[in-house]
Amino acid sequence: MYSFLNDYSEGAHPLVLEALIHTNSEQTVGYGNDVYCQKAQEDIRNRIHNPLADVHFLVGGTQTNLTFISYVLRDYQAVIACDEGHIHVHETGAVEATGHKVLTRPHHDGKLTVEAIREIIETHLDEHMVQPAMVYISQTTELGTYYTREELKVLSQYTREHGLYLFLDGARLGSALVLDDAPQLQEIAQYVDAFYIGGTKMGAMFGEALVIIHDDLKKDFRYHLKNKGAMLAKGRLLGVQFHTLLKDSLYEDIGRHENEMANIIREALEEKGYHIDLPSHTNQIFVDLPNEAIEKIEQEYMITHIKPLDSGYTRIRIVTSWATAEEEANKFAEFIKRI
Amino acid sequence: MYSFLNDYSEGAHPLVLEALIHTNSEQTVGYGNDVYCQKAQEDIRNRIHNPLADVHFLVGGTQTNLTFISYVLRDYQAVIACDEGHIHVHETGAVEATGHKVLTRPHHDGKLTVEAIREIIETHLDEHMVQPAMVYISQTTELGTYYTREELKVLSQYTREHGLYLFLDGARLGSALVLDDAPQLQEIAQYVDAFYIGGTKMGAMFGEALVIIHDDLKKDFRYHLKNKGAMLAKGRLLGVQFHTLLKDSLYEDIGRHENEMANIIREALEEKGYHIDLPSHTNQIFVDLPNEAIEKIEQEYMITHIKPLDSGYTRIRIVTSWATAEEEANKFAEFIKRI
Amino acid sequence: MYSFLNDYSEGAHPLVLEALIHTNSEQTVGYGNDVYCQKAQEDIRNRIHNPLADVHFLVGGTQTNLTFISYVLRDYQAVIACDEGHIHVHETGAVEATGHKVLTRPHHDGKLTVEAIREIIETHLDEHMVQPAMVYISQTTELGTYYTREELKVLSQYTREHGLYLFLDGARLGSALVLDDAPQLQEIAQYVDAFYIGGTKMGAMFGEALVIIHDDLKKDFRYHLKNKGAMLAKGRLLGVQFHTLLKDSLYEDIGRHENEMANIIREALEEKGYHIDLPSHTNQIFVDLPNEAIEKIEQEYMITHIKPLDSGYTRIRIVTSWATAEEEANKFAEFIKRI
Amino acid sequence: MYSFLNDYSEGAHPLVLEALIHTNSEQTVGYGNDVYCQKAQEDIRNRIHNPLADVHFLVGGTQTNLTFISYVLRDYQAVIACDEGHIHVHETGAVEATGHKVLTRPHHDGKLTVEAIREIIETHLDEHMVQPAMVYISQTTELGTYYTREELKVLSQYTREHGLYLFLDGARLGSALVLDDAPQLQEIAQYVDAFYIGGTKMGAMFGEALVIIHDDLKKDFRYHLKNKGAMLAKGRLLGVQFHTLLKDSLYEDIGRHENEMANIIREALEEKGYHIDLPSHTNQIFVDLPNEAIEKIEQEYMITHIKPLDSGYTRIRIVTSWATAEEEANKFAEFIKRI
Repeated sequence: MYSFLNDYSEGAHPLVLEALIHTNSEQTVGYGNDVYCQKAQEDIRNRIHNPLADVHFLVGGTQTNLTFISYVLRDYQAVIACDEGHIHVHETGAVEATGHKVLTRPHHDGKLTVEAIREIIETHLDEHMVQPAMVYISQTTELGTYYTREELKVLSQYTREHGLYLFLDGARLGSALVLDDAPQLQEIAQYVDAFYIGGTKMGAMFGEALVIIHDDLKKDFRYHLKNKGAMLAKGRLLGVQFHTLLKDSLYEDIGRHENEMANIIREALEEKGYHIDLPSHTNQIFVDLPNEAIEKIEQEYMITHIKPLDSGYTRIRIVTSWATAEEEANKFAEFIKRI
Repeated sequence: MYSFLNDYSEGAHPLVLEALIHTNSEQTVGYGNDVYCQKAQEDIRNRIHNPLADVHFLVGGTQTNLTFISYVLRDYQAVIACDEGHIHVHETGAVEATGHKVLTRPHHDGKLTVEAIREIIETHLDEHMVQPAMVYISQTTELGTYYTREELKVLSQYTREHGLYLFLDGARLGSALVLDDAPQLQEIAQYVDAFYIGGTKMGAMFGEALVIIHDDLKKDFRYHLKNKGAMLAKGRLLGVQFHTLLKDSLYEDIGRHENEMANIIREALEEKGYHIDLPSHTNQIFVDLPNEAIEKIEQEYMITHIKPLDSGYTRIRIVTSWATAEEEANKFAEFIKRI
Repeated sequence: MYSFLNDYSEGAHPLVLEALIHTNSEQTVGYGNDVYCQKAQEDIRNRIHNPLADVHFLVGGTQTNLTFISYVLRDYQAVIACDEGHIHVHETGAVEATGHKVLTRPHHDGKLTVEAIREIIETHLDEHMVQPAMVYISQTTELGTYYTREELKVLSQYTREHGLYLFLDGARLGSALVLDDAPQLQEIAQYVDAFYIGGTKMGAMFGEALVIIHDDLKKDFRYHLKNKGAMLAKGRLLGVQFHTLLKDSLYEDIGRHENEMANIIREALEEKGYHIDLPSHTNQIFVDLPNEAIEKIEQEYMITHIKPLDSGYTRIRIVTSWATAEEEANKFAEFIKRI
Repeated sequence: MYSFLNDYSEGAHPLVLEALIHTNSEQTVGYGNDVYCQKAQEDIRNRIHNPLADVHFLVGGTQTNLTFISYVLRDYQAVIACDEGHIHVHETGAVEATGHKVLTRPHHDGKLTVEAIREIIETHLDEHMVQPAMVYISQTTELGTYYTREELKVLSQYTREHGLYLFLDGARLGSALVLDDAPQLQEIAQYVDAFYIGGTKMGAMFGEALVIIHDDLKKDFRYHLKNKGAMLAKGRLLGVQFHTLLKDSLYEDIGRHENEMANIIREALEEKGYHIDLPSHTNQIFVDLPNEAIEKIEQEYMITHIKPLDSGYTRIRIVTSWATAEEEANKFAEFIKRI
């Protein structure tokens, strides 16, 4: 059984693994103060042309979201997300467990719109209601779509005008970075107040690189990291990995590869005339298949069921990754065509 | 300017005030262990024919909700409410501040339905999503409607079958208790796992009486009360008030009075042909008025704007209370008819 | 049985009660935005000669402490208290429940010293340890002593030099205000960043007036109040009471009275040669009595056992209040002398 | 510069690294449901002869402590630790940030005694004080000592009699497991309600294996893991590592090695007549050295300063690990002798 369940089914990209092996016996100081973390921080600052950005390395996505959001918000403040937002649906109340409400509005192609934010702002006016203070989006979105350069710019302008911090969850950022009309790292850094460059789903063994742009969100963040149990003792493991991913173009190469592998499969699905939900060229495919087709697929492949639909169809998700070999993608495409 | 803004514009009902005056110089032990609290606890246990019910007195509604909900839920558990639920909209994230998500679905006439709860239950299936563990409803609802005996029974059966605790916020309970098809205290106590009998909006100077039915929710609750800053030093003030309200029928008398006063006004509005939203015979009226009419009214009366509507109308709220004199209700009714 | 258990055994001082009765039927807006709260806020601002102070009214002491401390501190910050501090010992972990550590050092005559604070500051140096950010003291202390004008000044200078907020819990403030070498309200307001004027233990039916001096601690505090369930619907009850206590000298008169009543009893104890622990002229007496004497006393009086001592003695606490009639104090003094 | 700062200066033990390399390209399901986690869970259950034990893998020590402690305690409950306990001193208030007080008493040779626990139990008697519900100890202790088999048994008996859960933090457990009079894994599992087998400081790249014995502490723990951001996406990384460490005797071999390396250094220090604080045969040495000696050492070695002492001495810490080559230990020993 070959798995298209997600982009974290394997260990680490060979180059990342190699770097970990290569540095394994070196001694470094702990907690992210080592030379590899410094190098990776420099890589990121160079990439975004912002020498003052703060960069912190954490282990996982939910951890990064809960740690940063709880750092930014006061007790009575809330974060705004769309109703498919990872923090709202798939983090088991992790943000609320730090004391903060997630305010939601329905998504639009998986995305949060200015109109949705405005609705919340205009109905949260006094101290009897939670105070919206932050906007959470993810790139790519939970539904495999992405914010274009222009869409991010519009969100950025609105949130700045209304005193809201804008935070971008980049768990699958690499998949969007290589798309023509999507914002590049440097543009993202100009538009948001903080974002994270996902590693776990992008070829790292584990890890997320949180990049803080807004000066008001930097003070004593390392205390907060520790307070939330999110400061890794052997921090250098994160530095080594992100330095490997970001010193050249490996991160984007991985994004391009996984998108290409998805496209191979996507084309086979389209050729068969299946309905692809919110089509886009990222590494996630949401497609509506007849249940018999799914049955056949699942004799050889692992895929995710999203939800049952009418008349014998089910929406499923197929995800490619840095580890999806071209041979496997082609084999799966052929398999689909033959169903 | 006479106020129809809410049911807590005045102090305490004369009989409640009298009881406070009468007992003022007595010495009692603190923190709710006094004889008046014991009497009020007995009154409630007698009323609901449940000698084992635990009764605790708190000062305010948001305090009662956050204290009880945080007592019941584990960190990863959530409470279900309708989208107009007080805990969701008007408590400034108080429940989330104790670490818990409020899961919502759209209301139906201000009420939460079994269908809405089922939708949540059926989509929260594994440890990546918060675990629904409790259902929150209020009687009367935020929109002035109420759960009938039958509706509460259905909710009760569903929640018991699905291992969900059912909690009823009775901030305005008295207004419903006197309606024919609404559940009485004893019935409520049979259908829910806990509820509170509201005092603040029902003639008390302040205070809410939390009644815990389910045995699993009783242990060490006084520790939790104190932990949340909700244990009043002079607890006897609460005992004295609830004993006064509940030893005879004062609580229901107040409910009946405020409903009658609302009916006087409601009839005038209906006579003028104004659209009343979700009509019911409780003490809250939501009505759509032309803006010019509102302008006239507000020269002499205080009312609450709910939301602007199309074509020059606005939805407003009018609330009566124990303190609404019949003379004032009639005057206002006449005023409306003359607009 | 006459009670000397504490200073909240009765209801409200007659003048406070009268004011509540007098205003009972007036209509006001809710949540502390009424004219009585405004008056009481003005009374306090005038008293401390600080027109910019923010004043908020809360219901109880633990509630005030947890609400204000959680407002001031970031997740990774701690409050410093002495080991007898009310927040450390007698609030059932209420401060920790809001997410913050209480750092302690042994008290000195019930008080926190600069040396104790310095010890903490000098050993909390990096992000692996919680960050001290606030100092909590109470006037009078849990042991009935008080900070002199000079002692408070020294604490103030030290905390300002070290970037620590200084917060004074004035649950029994009135008892200290009337002592010659203790700081007056205006002086306190100059030395601390925030303090509260206790009502519950000083003749109010209930209530504490939180006074915020430091500008950085004012923004959106009302949101936080509501978030913690600490915003009273009928806020005017608090305004009416504090206006009554503070518009003239009633607050100090009550403090003087309770101290005088304690002195009557204290003299009798001293005459009998009993050891008074940390003698001072406030309304709390801690005295070591032979167990037989206690047995006799407890046939007619209620007192608090603090701890058993060696050789048949027990330390007990006797507390006087606004409600302690001179006749009762004299009777008790005579009783003691006769033991 | 060679580092004796701690036992997490390098990456992973070669065998652990090899296992990660070997399994890198395999596909597994996520979140700890993979076959490697199952194997490691079986290894542990076999080791402790308890087929019903629940085993969960987390990334770091502070994370494990905060996640488990917050799972066990109710809001008003506290955990007891000695004043040198890691959760009290070196976790930046992580436990308090989850809402719980850490109650402390002075340590005795780095350890918590029954007497210390009893003092707390006997003074926390009512709902105005936090309720002690759990005891936290660590093996080895923060001061390099360890609980003997007999000491752990005594603690176990006392805590069971008093309804307290006993939790053992085994960040450096391997160092104790190989000492004659220290409890073995199976014994620990009989004496405590939960414990964790530390990986980060014991040769793993990262990771801690939490072992839950008490049935009441098992339900839905995976929800809690996720809620605290502590569920690793590529959970198999933890399974692979712990399977490698525990399937044979690698874990104990590492413990034995690091102790032996410490003994080489310890003997040199003793030969020179330096005072070793709380001598024991674990991998941490606390020793008081003249400042000039420290100066010389620090030209070639990294060590930790614990605290300045009188008359020109400083207490320092030296830590050995799986990675300390015998050659390096001997070189350092010779260096010390030559100082």
